[in-house]
Amino acid sequence: MSVRYGLLTLLRDHGPQSCAQLAGRLQVPRPRLLAELDRLVASGTVVEAGPNASRGRRRSPLVELNPGLRLAAIDLDARSVGVEVTDGRLRAVASHSEHCDIRTGPANVLGRVTQILDKIRAEGHFTRLDAIGIGLPGPVSFREGIPVSPPIMPGWDRHPVRDVLSEEHGCPVAVDNDVNVMTLGEQHSGVARTVDNLIFVKIGSGIGCGVQIDGRIYRGAAGCAGDIGHIQVDADGPVCSCGNVGCLEALFSREALTHHAAEYAVDGNRSPMLAELLAAKGCLTARDVADGAAAGDAVCIGLVRTGGRRVGQVLAGLVSFMNPSMIVIGGDLADLGHILLAELRSVVYQRSLPLATGDLPIVLSELGGRAGVVGAAVLASELAYGDTV
Amino acid sequence: MSVRYGLLTLLRDHGPQSCAQLAGRLQVPRPRLLAELDRLVASGTVVEAGPNASRGRRRSPLVELNPGLRLAAIDLDARSVGVEVTDGRLRAVASHSEHCDIRTGPANVLGRVTQILDKIRAEGHFTRLDAIGIGLPGPVSFREGIPVSPPIMPGWDRHPVRDVLSEEHGCPVAVDNDVNVMTLGEQHSGVARTVDNLIFVKIGSGIGCGVQIDGRIYRGAAGCAGDIGHIQVDADGPVCSCGNVGCLEALFSREALTHHAAEYAVDGNRSPMLAELLAAKGCLTARDVADGAAAGDAVCIGLVRTGGRRVGQVLAGLVSFMNPSMIVIGGDLADLGHILLAELRSVVYQRSLPLATGDLPIVLSELGGRAGVVGAAVLASELAYGDTV
Repeated sequence: MSVRYGLLTLLRDHGPQSCAQLAGRLQVPRPRLLAELDRLVASGTVVEAGPNASRGRRRSPLVELNPGLRLAAIDLDARSVGVEVTDGRLRAVASHSEHCDIRTGPANVLGRVTQILDKIRAEGHFTRLDAIGIGLPGPVSFREGIPVSPPIMPGWDRHPVRDVLSEEHGCPVAVDNDVNVMTLGEQHSGVARTVDNLIFVKIGSGIGCGVQIDGRIYRGAAGCAGDIGHIQVDADGPVCSCGNVGCLEALFSREALTHHAAEYAVDGNRSPMLAELLAAKGCLTARDVADGAAAGDAVCIGLVRTGGRRVGQVLAGLVSFMNPSMIVIGGDLADLGHILLAELRSVVYQRSLPLATGDLPIVLSELGGRAGVVGAAVLASELAYGDTV
Repeated sequence: MSVRYGLLTLLRDHGPQSCAQLAGRLQVPRPRLLAELDRLVASGTVVEAGPNASRGRRRSPLVELNPGLRLAAIDLDARSVGVEVTDGRLRAVASHSEHCDIRTGPANVLGRVTQILDKIRAEGHFTRLDAIGIGLPGPVSFREGIPVSPPIMPGWDRHPVRDVLSEEHGCPVAVDNDVNVMTLGEQHSGVARTVDNLIFVKIGSGIGCGVQIDGRIYRGAAGCAGDIGHIQVDADGPVCSCGNVGCLEALFSREALTHHAAEYAVDGNRSPMLAELLAAKGCLTARDVADGAAAGDAVCIGLVRTGGRRVGQVLAGLVSFMNPSMIVIGGDLADLGHILLAELRSVVYQRSLPLATGDLPIVLSELGGRAGVVGAAVLASELAYGDTV
């Protein structure tokens, strides 16, 4: 970790500080710190914090991030776009989200992102951006800043997302997949703040996980680490969209869950509640199943439990392999809540090595739907503050 | 990585070098390098390499590791002990191996290790050791240097292996589990030399793996990462010694293989070859199955294939999760060779993400039975050269 990065992230996370505090926290010699601070003040990234600058004889001013720093965080989902502009300390100064179909292609979606940013600029929230972080719902080559064969993003394959946004907005841009971005968010501002080795599981239209090792996102040799949705959990299971049989995603995901719920609803004797809802609305959502489970509907509870067991089966193996410090469950289907969590935990605690589970919290995401945009801001700050992510 | 460690490991791996070469390879400023070299020469760790020391006008001597440095590598197995004393460049100066039953307890086994080292010392191969590295066949708390609840090592639980050996031989000692040690060996001197993200699978009396991330052994939150032997591969499988059902180890390991081979041998019609061997020797070994498979015995080939498929099932999931750069198969059962490898590969290539397997070699260990002792020497050198492993 460079002194520059250490210094800027301390100011990001802890606000104004004295040189003595910074030197102590970073454990670097004071002269080296002061030299770096001089450079950062000269470039305008860091400023002396006004009120304490001239207190008493011993001049020991606080320094802080320039309040004018601006980062843009963009969270693209299959069906929505969230944009947040923050200051250097990741505090939102403006935000906007709206419906947006990722399938309308990159020109349309990124064009809309630019319109939103232009509008925020026009409202006076910034004049220029220092960095942009963006999460995409598909595999991404982080190094190249492009999506690679993303299954639910027709027209996006190898589209130069980083370069397009960078040229448009005149600042560096980091592109990552949504799960890695959510993991960054949860680790920075969520339930995993104190954790170094983390698995963040996103359960939504698919299932994927972010892996953090020694405090950094681990991407793997080809950048596709964490793609656990197609691990086989039932050799006699249904055929998956990938062509294999019994993949985790084929058995439990938003689509699989609503599909199974609709089957039970049609057979009205099994769950009169789901049958009524289906008759009234014409379709069922994961939310309906969650509500049903919360209301004690046995079929809904059964669906959630079965799903939890499937995810638990996969996680049990990964826990034995990786021996993480924490597992966080996020994504839409985390709304299924404690019934999901209880079943998943019971499988992991039963099947994994006792030594690996003795001190292993398995918890729901604290940031929920905000994990993506929070993580994208962290991603932007890591780029602006000069570390390779 | 410290300059000291970088410098000493360069001299370990590439022999005598000039200061210019070292500065170039380490990419540190020359004054900083020279200051560190001065310290290392003063302490006797590094010496000027004789022949080139005074060549011509421009004095640019080569430096090298003190030829008198001595490291001890100890490879403890369930049934054998291997000891090697090497110079600072990990070249063996003396070695010894013998039968030794780990179940006779730490006082006996470590006492025997000390006798062997004393004998090598008496033969004049060293006067003092700079460090000892030792691998144990069970879970180890690396930080404390002790085995923790090792299933096949009665009497060893929390025995202070590090402190006992350190006191006895007056040098620092690093203790790790055998699979991590073999992984170190394979990465340093074996087939994985150029690889940063590695899974090394040991298939023997149990199944475990060593995980290397960004060039370093990854141990996990509680130090038990890589313990994949109890991942479930068949929900209807046999009960495992751990109490769960259908664990990988319960379906494929030295014991499981010879047990199944004996079943087929008793039913002589299935494999007359195994039946004959069993009648002649009274028991069957993994070697017999390997020989049978090599000779074309259908039952033996089937046993090896089934085993490979089981291991492949687990690895397929781990490949999707970790996206490693290479998988190395080692341990006794790697002797089952290319039939095992072919089956295992076919499952991984079929089931894992194409992006993760596109460029993924799955290969047999190059060091074979020497991986443990080679890795223990690397472990000792990492300790002696001042890095935290």
